[in-house]
Amino acid sequence: MNVDVVIVGAGLAGLACARAVVKAGASCVVVEARDRVGGRTLSRAIGAGTFDLGAQWIGPTQDRMEALTRELGVATFPTFHEGRKVLDLDGKISTYAGTIPSLSLPRLLELQRVLSKVERMSAAIDLDAPERSKRAETYDAETLEGFKRRSIHSRAVRELLDAAVRVVFGAEPCDLSMLHFLFYLRSGGGLMRLIEIEKGAQERRFVGGAQQVSIRMAAALGDRVRTSAPVRRIDQDASGVTVRGDGFEVRAKRCVVAVPPALAGRIEYSPALPAPRDQLTQRMPMGATVKCIALYERPFWRARGLSGEGVANRGPASVVFDNTTHDAAQASLLAFVVGGPAKTWSTRSEADRKSAILAQLARMFGDEALSPTDYVEHDWSTEIWTRGCPVGLMPTGVLTQFAPALRAPCGRIHWAGTETATKWHGFMEGALESGERAAREALRA
Amino acid sequence: MNVDVVIVGAGLAGLACARAVVKAGASCVVVEARDRVGGRTLSRAIGAGTFDLGAQWIGPTQDRMEALTRELGVATFPTFHEGRKVLDLDGKISTYAGTIPSLSLPRLLELQRVLSKVERMSAAIDLDAPERSKRAETYDAETLEGFKRRSIHSRAVRELLDAAVRVVFGAEPCDLSMLHFLFYLRSGGGLMRLIEIEKGAQERRFVGGAQQVSIRMAAALGDRVRTSAPVRRIDQDASGVTVRGDGFEVRAKRCVVAVPPALAGRIEYSPALPAPRDQLTQRMPMGATVKCIALYERPFWRARGLSGEGVANRGPASVVFDNTTHDAAQASLLAFVVGGPAKTWSTRSEADRKSAILAQLARMFGDEALSPTDYVEHDWSTEIWTRGCPVGLMPTGVLTQFAPALRAPCGRIHWAGTETATKWHGFMEGALESGERAAREALRA
Repeated sequence: MNVDVVIVGAGLAGLACARAVVKAGASCVVVEARDRVGGRTLSRAIGAGTFDLGAQWIGPTQDRMEALTRELGVATFPTFHEGRKVLDLDGKISTYAGTIPSLSLPRLLELQRVLSKVERMSAAIDLDAPERSKRAETYDAETLEGFKRRSIHSRAVRELLDAAVRVVFGAEPCDLSMLHFLFYLRSGGGLMRLIEIEKGAQERRFVGGAQQVSIRMAAALGDRVRTSAPVRRIDQDASGVTVRGDGFEVRAKRCVVAVPPALAGRIEYSPALPAPRDQLTQRMPMGATVKCIALYERPFWRARGLSGEGVANRGPASVVFDNTTHDAAQASLLAFVVGGPAKTWSTRSEADRKSAILAQLARMFGDEALSPTDYVEHDWSTEIWTRGCPVGLMPTGVLTQFAPALRAPCGRIHWAGTETATKWHGFMEGALESGERAAREALRA
Repeated sequence: MNVDVVIVGAGLAGLACARAVVKAGASCVVVEARDRVGGRTLSRAIGAGTFDLGAQWIGPTQDRMEALTRELGVATFPTFHEGRKVLDLDGKISTYAGTIPSLSLPRLLELQRVLSKVERMSAAIDLDAPERSKRAETYDAETLEGFKRRSIHSRAVRELLDAAVRVVFGAEPCDLSMLHFLFYLRSGGGLMRLIEIEKGAQERRFVGGAQQVSIRMAAALGDRVRTSAPVRRIDQDASGVTVRGDGFEVRAKRCVVAVPPALAGRIEYSPALPAPRDQLTQRMPMGATVKCIALYERPFWRARGLSGEGVANRGPASVVFDNTTHDAAQASLLAFVVGGPAKTWSTRSEADRKSAILAQLARMFGDEALSPTDYVEHDWSTEIWTRGCPVGLMPTGVLTQFAPALRAPCGRIHWAGTETATKWHGFMEGALESGERAAREALRA
């Protein structure tokens, strides 16, 4: 096979890249290791609905994703959020309205103070080159955990921040460089936007599941998309690039690698990539996320005036959402086991996890939670073509020392994937941005 | 091929493991990706001597290495260290005797204070389970850079610590979890032992180079060692394990993977490894080390009363040693470009690096340094079967969350390599410990 651009990975980034290449009149092929497209989106029919085992929300300012879903005819609907939310603090349940949990006044004040401090700090981050932001070296020498210990004294407030960080990053505050954390917040428009439903990143869901966006893009690309084709090796020479995998070979003028750095580093390159690029791929581990979906006969929590949204400091789940289908045909709750608890619980049996999750849901929303009509879970850390979710993390020192290697082309190879995005880095929106940017680079060259 | 134990990697760990397996009367084969044995040791004839492009020293309490070299008939000799040492601070040169550089009295006091504080802290670390040490979570949430900024106020003292950390870890203080740093110090017997020649880790060198130890072990193992055999895939089933690579296949009862975690993670496993093990391999990046060896007609620095040892806060080299052969037949200086400077300089041309290194050596030791008879350098970050040196690093959060996955067998697979050692972790000594421990595990099973 001989094309202008060969694209590795048929997630949103790779497919968006292929669309842009085709639109410009150039030829391309997308090779994908899995037997399906969509990367970190994965929708499955369960009970009387289709549910997302991967990414599932779209929110304001995610303009590329908005336009694309509209163009492809994928409908969205508001995430259910009427009623009171549940706070599970050390197993003690309380409910609250609005954004801020039901804490004592001193705790509330501390939470508000630290939230505005973090928003202020993140507002100063340069999205195109976070490593050149003011105080970048100081922030990149410290973990979010260190900042938290210095800035927050209430245990409850600390642990609420932990829960938010777990669900956003699939990680613990000790895993994250403060600079990466601030960059990520800025990239998505602030911490509150990242964790909120209303006007936030969880605002709307996709009728029929988020994977449809990729499936429809792939359908339009036709036989340019090849699944079950894991790439093992990329060779560059003076006239082009050769991508080789199990039983196939593609020759092209340019190559776009649209997989997370942790996976890109497992491909063999000849000539070998420059040291900073290889070292970067060793330094962006994927977060740990297990999504647990429980189906019910009816959304019993709604009848009790609860929105289905909940947050907990103890495991297994850190955050819970109402996950009922748009047409209310299938009631469901979605529990996130993320970060530290994902590590602890991933080695237990599914039966253990299930009973612990259901017990927690019962504590939070009522005993009916103990009797689901179905229960499905998905541990992204065990998917070898992703190795964790939602995103590649940056420990301390990575942004200040290696940031340029994230996007800098290596000869004929260009880098895409949401980890290379500047806006909505880590989200589906960022994946689209990265694919389009890589396509521009490859076409220009 | 059908054996009791198949070992992946013919570095010191893999070869020590094979020796132990054979000694116990079991059969084994060692498969090695490179066309040579020795891993991170590599000795090459240059000028009138043989020089180490990789690990090269042995010091007190490295008992396994001591016994093994004696058994194999590899001689050692003291590292030259007579005369004054050179301190290159912002390009300003001074000389000093003894251990501590020529600093002003307040700086000296601060240096002494922080050194004893660090030694005190590291003495409390549990080598078998550093994650269970007192204050482990606090240490693992902080970088060495954060500790440095809090504990040291003099810029000169800070930058001397940077130089020491660069040469020991191939990393910057912001790359390292404080817990990993303290564990590493404790594992080698303290910071001063790690950085010193006399009574330290640089005490003696190998006549003919350190790689000989591996070469002689491999010779004794005969055709049990197969080079140019990169392993791509390891399959486990109820009765055994199958290791597959380019054009070969080995069947065994047990498998020992004796390569750094960053490389072990690039092998495909079936069934997939448990999530914590895979996540660990994403979280232990290799340090960055470029060794630069300049040969001279004579050891001109000795005539000036200098030992050839030097330390610098600015690049390219952070630390310099006399590298003359045991018989004085070939005079040489060895310069380490490590950590941050290795990243900066690795993308420059070899000519640029060479002239910058020689200019620095001239500044430190005299203008004769500008006229070497030969100059050789080795950037371990560009070696695809190592991807960095000297060792796999642990960013914050890794030890407290993933330490058990370092050594815990996964079914029939056991893990060796110096990154799994408890004593002299990161050194040749640790590699031997790890290989012998993995052999015991595999033989017992």
